[in-house]
Amino acid sequence: MTASSPASPADEGSLALEDLSYRAAVIDLLGAIAYGEISAFERLAEDATMAPSLEDKVAILAMAATEFGHLELLHDRLRELGADPYAAMAPFRVALDKFHEHTAPSDWFESLIKAYVGDGMAADFYREIAAYLDPRTRDVVVASLSDAGHSDFVVDRVRGAIEQDPRLGGRLALWGRRLMGEALTQAQRVAAERDALSSLLAGGIDRPGLDLAAIGRMFTRITELHTDRMARLGLDA
Amino acid sequence: MTASSPASPADEGSLALEDLSYRAAVIDLLGAIAYGEISAFERLAEDATMAPSLEDKVAILAMAATEFGHLELLHDRLRELGADPYAAMAPFRVALDKFHEHTAPSDWFESLIKAYVGDGMAADFYREIAAYLDPRTRDVVVASLSDAGHSDFVVDRVRGAIEQDPRLGGRLALWGRRLMGEALTQAQRVAAERDALSSLLAGGIDRPGLDLAAIGRMFTRITELHTDRMARLGLDA
Repeated sequence: MTASSPASPADEGSLALEDLSYRAAVIDLLGAIAYGEISAFERLAEDATMAPSLEDKVAILAMAATEFGHLELLHDRLRELGADPYAAMAPFRVALDKFHEHTAPSDWFESLIKAYVGDGMAADFYREIAAYLDPRTRDVVVASLSDAGHSDFVVDRVRGAIEQDPRLGGRLALWGRRLMGEALTQAQRVAAERDALSSLLAGGIDRPGLDLAAIGRMFTRITELHTDRMARLGLDA
Repeated sequence: MTASSPASPADEGSLALEDLSYRAAVIDLLGAIAYGEISAFERLAEDATMAPSLEDKVAILAMAATEFGHLELLHDRLRELGADPYAAMAPFRVALDKFHEHTAPSDWFESLIKAYVGDGMAADFYREIAAYLDPRTRDVVVASLSDAGHSDFVVDRVRGAIEQDPRLGGRLALWGRRLMGEALTQAQRVAAERDALSSLLAGGIDRPGLDLAAIGRMFTRITELHTDRMARLGLDA
C-alpha cells in the first residue's frame, strides 16, 4: 500500500485524505469497486454466449462494456492518491471471484437477473458509502455506478418470460434470494479482513460516522431496494 | 433490405445514396463491420481468460471494449439509411463465425497476435474501401477503425516472449500466415455471395471505381501492411 504518498494537487487541503486510515480505506474501496467492474465485465461477456438472439447478446455485451468504461476513472483516482491500481484491487479478487463462482447462472434468465440484481445491490451499497467520502472520490464512485439505462432491457425480458411460463417466476425468485445471500456472505468476509474499509463507516477527523443503529438502517434500506428491484422483475424477494 | 427507404436529412442531395445498388452495398459494408466488432468483442473477452496476469487481462478487455464502442456509431448510420442493423449484420454471421472457429487461439500469444493482426488486416481493408464511400459513411467507417493505441501492448508482450524463447517466433509466424489465409478465404466467400458489396469497388454514378489492376494493387498494399505488422512483432510474414 502506498497510502502515505503525497496527495495530488486536486486534493490539497483535504483534511480527510491526511487521515491515513481514511486514505487506506478509500484505496480499498476504489480497489474493490474496480475489481468488481472487471469481474462483472468478464461474467457478462461469458453469459452473453447464452443469449437467445443477437439483439439480446448485444444488449448484455453493452452492459459489460459500460462496466468496463468505469474502470479507467477508478484507476485514475487510485493513481491520484498515489496507489497502484493493481495492488489496490488484489485484496478483493478472492471474495469477488468466489461470489461469481458460487452464482454461476445455469441459463439466460438467471444471468439476466444476476446482472440486474447483482449490479443493483452493489450500486446501492456503494452509493450509501459515497456519503462518507471526500467530494472528489465521491464523484468518481457515483459516476462508476451509472448503468446507462441498460436495466430496462432486463425487466422487459424477464417479465415477458414469466408471463409465458409462470413457473419460471418461482425458480427465479429463489435465484434472487441466493444472489442476495451470497453477496452478504462475501461482503462479511471482506469486512472481516479489511479493517480500514469497515472503519470507513465509523467516521474520523473531519468526517461523520455511523453508529450501529445507523448501520442497521443502512442495511434495511439496501434490502428494501433489493425487494423493489425484484418486484419490478415480477418476482418475490 | 430496406435500401429503398428515404435518406435521412443529413444525406439529402447525395447522388451516391440515390443509387440503389450503392446504398445496398453501404448497408452490407456497415453490417459486415458491425458484426465484425461484435464477434471481435466476444472472442477477445473469451481470450482474456487465458491472460497470465490481471494487467494483461485488463489490456485485452480494453481492446474488446473499444471494438464494442464502435457498434453504436455503425448501427446509427444503418438506421439513418433506413436499414435494420440486425438484418444488415445477418448475412455476415456465417463467414465471421467461421473465421473465428477456424482460428481459435491455443494459447495467450496466439490470441494476442490474432487480436493485433486480425484487427489490423480488417482495418486496412475497410480503410481502402472507405475511399469509395460518401463522406458521411466514410467518417463512420474510419471512426470505427480506431484502436485507441492498444496495439502497443501486444507488440511489447509478443517481442518480450520471443526474446525469452526464440522458438516461439517460428510457431507464431506460422500462426500469422494461417490468420491471413483464413481471412482471405472468408473474404472470398463474402465477395461471392454479396454482389452489391463487391460491386462497390467497381464504382457507379457519381463514384469512381477500380479496374482489376487497381484491385490487385489494393491487395498488394494490404499484404505489405500485414508484413510490416508481423515485422513489428518480430515475426516473418
